[in-house]
Amino acid sequence: LAVGQHLNGPLLDHAEGQHFLKEAFQIILEEALCQGTDNKEKQVCEWRDPEELRTMLDLELRDGGESHDQLLRRVRDVAKYSVKTNHPLFFNQLFAGVDYHALAGRFLTETLNTSQYTYEVAPVFVLMEDVVLSQLRSLVGWEEGDGIFCPGGSVSNMYAINVARYRAFPQVKLKGLWAVPRLAIFTSQESHYSVCKGAAFEGIGLENVFLVNVDERGCMIPEDLDLKIELARMQGAVPFLVSATSGTTIQGSFDPLDRIADVCEKHGLWMHVDPGGGSVLLSKRHRHLIKGIERADSVTWNPHKMLLTGLQCSVFLLKDTTNLLKRCHCANATYLFQQDKFYDVSLDTGDKSVQCGRKVDCLKLWLMWKALGTQGLEKRVDKAFANTRYLVEEMKKREGFHLVNEPQFVNVCFWFIPPSLRGVEDGEEYRERLSKVAPTIKERMMRKGSMMVGYQPQKGRVNFFRMVVLSPQISQEEMDFFLDEIERLGKDL
Amino acid sequence: LAVGQHLNGPLLDHAEGQHFLKEAFQIILEEALCQGTDNKEKQVCEWRDPEELRTMLDLELRDGGESHDQLLRRVRDVAKYSVKTNHPLFFNQLFAGVDYHALAGRFLTETLNTSQYTYEVAPVFVLMEDVVLSQLRSLVGWEEGDGIFCPGGSVSNMYAINVARYRAFPQVKLKGLWAVPRLAIFTSQESHYSVCKGAAFEGIGLENVFLVNVDERGCMIPEDLDLKIELARMQGAVPFLVSATSGTTIQGSFDPLDRIADVCEKHGLWMHVDPGGGSVLLSKRHRHLIKGIERADSVTWNPHKMLLTGLQCSVFLLKDTTNLLKRCHCANATYLFQQDKFYDVSLDTGDKSVQCGRKVDCLKLWLMWKALGTQGLEKRVDKAFANTRYLVEEMKKREGFHLVNEPQFVNVCFWFIPPSLRGVEDGEEYRERLSKVAPTIKERMMRKGSMMVGYQPQKGRVNFFRMVVLSPQISQEEMDFFLDEIERLGKDL
Ligand SMILES: Cc1ncc(COP(=O)(O)O)c(C=O)c1O
Ligand SMILES: Cc1ncc(COP(=O)(O)O)c(C=O)c1O
Repeated sequence: LAVGQHLNGPLLDHAEGQHFLKEAFQIILEEALCQGTDNKEKQVCEWRDPEELRTMLDLELRDGGESHDQLLRRVRDVAKYSVKTNHPLFFNQLFAGVDYHALAGRFLTETLNTSQYTYEVAPVFVLMEDVVLSQLRSLVGWEEGDGIFCPGGSVSNMYAINVARYRAFPQVKLKGLWAVPRLAIFTSQESHYSVCKGAAFEGIGLENVFLVNVDERGCMIPEDLDLKIELARMQGAVPFLVSATSGTTIQGSFDPLDRIADVCEKHGLWMHVDPGGGSVLLSKRHRHLIKGIERADSVTWNPHKMLLTGLQCSVFLLKDTTNLLKRCHCANATYLFQQDKFYDVSLDTGDKSVQCGRKVDCLKLWLMWKALGTQGLEKRVDKAFANTRYLVEEMKKREGFHLVNEPQFVNVCFWFIPPSLRGVEDGEEYRERLSKVAPTIKERMMRKGSMMVGYQPQKGRVNFFRMVVLSPQISQEEMDFFLDEIERLGKDL
Repeated sequence: LAVGQHLNGPLLDHAEGQHFLKEAFQIILEEALCQGTDNKEKQVCEWRDPEELRTMLDLELRDGGESHDQLLRRVRDVAKYSVKTNHPLFFNQLFAGVDYHALAGRFLTETLNTSQYTYEVAPVFVLMEDVVLSQLRSLVGWEEGDGIFCPGGSVSNMYAINVARYRAFPQVKLKGLWAVPRLAIFTSQESHYSVCKGAAFEGIGLENVFLVNVDERGCMIPEDLDLKIELARMQGAVPFLVSATSGTTIQGSFDPLDRIADVCEKHGLWMHVDPGGGSVLLSKRHRHLIKGIERADSVTWNPHKMLLTGLQCSVFLLKDTTNLLKRCHCANATYLFQQDKFYDVSLDTGDKSVQCGRKVDCLKLWLMWKALGTQGLEKRVDKAFANTRYLVEEMKKREGFHLVNEPQFVNVCFWFIPPSLRGVEDGEEYRERLSKVAPTIKERMMRKGSMMVGYQPQKGRVNFFRMVVLSPQISQEEMDFFLDEIERLGKDL
């Protein structure tokens, strides 16, 4: 036996551990939750410049351990200097807010700490994933099909590429891309960059992603898709996949799915839908935006965005009933997927995944859904649309706000024109000065900690704000504050 | 405005939500934590056959929401029927046990709910990831380098494939694999299946993964690696990557890294190390097993296994100092990685990833490390080795236990020879009967819920148990119980 080992006792004190966990929970409630949600006067973030923060946090890892109290202070500090994405004035990403049932589901997931691959180690979650997937499929409009939870929407989109490729050219799995002609993917100019990242990662290459033109609202032009498919063929490439976007990342635009489906049918291509705005399927009022989605072969769905389940929660759904997902990804590892088990081994779905250990991401969505019901989820989606409408109407009433486009979804893209630029003629100098407005206002709001919203340039457009209005916890008050605050922060520019 | 929308108030009641969360936390403590850790008389799992469990759980999602009490019952049920991977008699996977500091870090991560991509939304975690990565690199023996947290070891291994490919043939990113000759990867016959899955996913193909022979202990034979490289070249393929394993999945074998590094140097290949047993780097006593790892170009590290941080926590490390990771994966999305920000944008590391939103996986490891110190982590690793030794010695004293091999790591692979088979001559019938022993004992232990351990066949070997002895919370008592219980469950076979 090794020297100095107390073999006969465990190395871990459960009572002490649980005591720490309880105290940490209390701090998390106070500092990470209430700090974000209790009061609008609290800051969205307590900004520190990187060097300063690095020093304050004392992140270094050392030989010796730290005391109970010191560790609790660390929990408090991490919370204190982190951004409160659950704050009602956080409009910076495609996620925001907090759902307490989902959060309880996440705590339970973390505590149970199992992997989603077999019924044996995840009996409840294997059955639960199946039910959630089938519910999501039926919202898409499919009675049958398959699917899997993935670590994020980008990975889900990568699944689409691989599965579509496998359907078209199953030999790729064994022989690699050298056994098939050059392949081509089609997606719009405003699609999410994950389609390109996926194409590069999966060996297809960025140049083989053909970017289809969009109209002035940011929606894919089906006629141009048709042209680009012909163009690719003329260049000797073989088209196999169209990835349409429903709710683009910046503008929240919806590609015309029915017309894209026609083009895909005509050319025999796999149609994937990547919906930033998948949640509109839950809304009777708004689901027309995504009409035709049932004609797709696969769909990504990201409940970690508008639905507030928390990162990570993304689903890849497909219409296929031939076990394509498993055939495409299986490696038949004997140590996990033994065929001589005493239960129905078709429940061991782990081999559908390109991962091995796979985090349980279904429980948070399931528990939230149980709490709100489909109707409660629908209400959230409708509320987000209504909030967006309110904001847009208010912006139109104010002199300094100039919409990039009438929003189709919950992304409000706008320029703030500061007083000194109002009435100035559009031209190089104007655009140069306007491009600096958003970064400056952003810096000011961050240093103040009053709110958070993102900005970016896009094609010919200089920096404009993208405000994402999705959290169910915002009211008119916050939206009015937002507009006032932008005016305050930008009035001298 | 939409009809029926109460626009002026939020849709969410924070007080009620937090009340639910507190009650759920209490249940999680009782049912998910104490149930697993308090008492060995408690079950590792309360087995139900799938049909029965499906009915009991009532998983269906409906239009209406459920009451507070009903939802708490659901939390309780999920915990009750899930496997207690934190139970001291759970030996079924390469993870087990619970660390309370890591768990507190996970709760905080979930509550803060941010994405790791920019300093702006994750100031604390961007700095923290950097410190943890540099600490891990220095354990490997590198003063500089790069790295990133990934959703699991399989994905980390995929990063190795892509980065190695990019270094050898940067044109693949733009032009795809058609622009380069057929590529070849080398890994041992007993390496983890993720290398193959990754090769298929990334367009290289299973047939271009050359499986190098292992010796009788499961370690890669460097001479055969050399031969296989020549073979691949003769077949017209271009070798670019060797993936060595330190702690194989089933037997826990360590490939001879120094000698593999010699072969890689000779042929100019990228050397990746995939360590099931990366934690041995923490142990002065055992790190000789992984000698030569500092010569690798990249290393995967999975703290979610032996180190108990909980799923998911995996790191991809590389020695490169030329920003290869970012050059290989970047897409320069303007809406996230604006270059005109008011802070040093080199902190926005999100474009090193193939993901977009990326879960914060560093906090749990960091907080646990702060709590235990490097010495505390070392103690855990040494304890696991000592436990394994004890078990092995005990097995040797008992008639029914037959080791597959002398363990190098914490994987104890063994057959249980039931009384009726003792002394029977090895032959087809013997092997046929022996192959049924493990599945039968496994079924019995699952139905009883007394403990969990996995089994599998491997090459010519019929089903044998693989027991993974890594949890710091086990003592001699559990190990003795384990052996007795196997004897009890198998005595009539
Ligand atoms: C040696 C080795 N590498 C990689 C992996 C994959 O890790 P993960 O399950 O985190 O994807 C495993 C998992 O068992 C493993 O044993
Ligand atoms: C349309 C769209 N698809 C995919 C993604 C990627 O999702 P994730 O961040 O979960 O990888 C995004 C993220 O913004 C998106 O907007």
